[in-house]
Amino acid sequence: MAKEPKTLDNLFHNTLRDIYFAEKKILSTLPKMAKAAQSADLKAAFEKHRGETEGHVARLEKVFATIEKKPQAKTCDAIVGITDEGAEIMKEYKGSPALDAGLLAAAQAVEHYEISRYGTLKTWAQELGLNDAVRLLDQTLEEEKKTDARLTVIAETVVNQQAEAA
Amino acid sequence: MAKEPKTLDNLFHNTLRDIYFAEKKILSTLPKMAKAAQSADLKAAFEKHRGETEGHVARLEKVFATIEKKPQAKTCDAIVGITDEGAEIMKEYKGSPALDAGLLAAAQAVEHYEISRYGTLKTWAQELGLNDAVRLLDQTLEEEKKTDARLTVIAETVVNQQAEAA
Repeated sequence: MAKEPKTLDNLFHNTLRDIYFAEKKILSTLPKMAKAAQSADLKAAFEKHRGETEGHVARLEKVFATIEKKPQAKTCDAIVGITDEGAEIMKEYKGSPALDAGLLAAAQAVEHYEISRYGTLKTWAQELGLNDAVRLLDQTLEEEKKTDARLTVIAETVVNQQAEAA
Repeated sequence: MAKEPKTLDNLFHNTLRDIYFAEKKILSTLPKMAKAAQSADLKAAFEKHRGETEGHVARLEKVFATIEKKPQAKTCDAIVGITDEGAEIMKEYKGSPALDAGLLAAAQAVEHYEISRYGTLKTWAQELGLNDAVRLLDQTLEEEKKTDARLTVIAETVVNQQAEAA
């Protein structure tokens, strides 16, 4: 069987499948994190981000369409590792005043993974002249950056005060 | 056996062990990435970052000292997942003009993981009043951000031109 040539198109498609898997994984993880969070602000931030993530999945499906491919996920070891660490924290720090700090750390690791992936995909889409894809990827990239900034504000205020108060 | 109380101190120590593992993993991975890279710029960037990473490991050992703990690594599933993806790219795209683009994507995912971890640790060190640790963590955080920016420049120029030329 002839192998698909390993060009930038191919790398773009593969990485799209990787982040598609990651977004779906995040979609199933966020409700658990919202449920576990002690601070109302953090709970609300996770719930808001769940809604945004639904939009990211839909946007990725449009990006697949721009390259005439069906949306298909490919297991992303990185996000599996990151979310496993988050799950471990939820278990180990259950009932602890440091739980929210741990959840925030896990969520920010997720955001940074996504920021790196969307940044990469946007650069490649530019190189490949996929203008619609550039626009779609950039919209999500900006939302991920805003989410990360919002989580930083929460981390610096509410959560660590809780941990200190213990 | 009495369990260690799950406070922010404990979370800080655990996360320090996680990033200590990650830095050591990166230290062993960078020479392979430098060897695989096709572009001289990218090869040089990986080699430079290898030297910096040795400094990051040494700095983390000083952070352990500030909390009177022995430097100890704890397996970090996230970095294992991220570097596994990088290894897969090195294998799948060997000899391909898109190899460097793939290596850059993997390296930027690593940088973003570190940026999120050092940002979190710095915030916690501030909350815990560990001023020496704040300074040490901030130095590495700034270096990781600079490395990420350097890789973005390479990604936008040399590498994608190579991929396009294929």
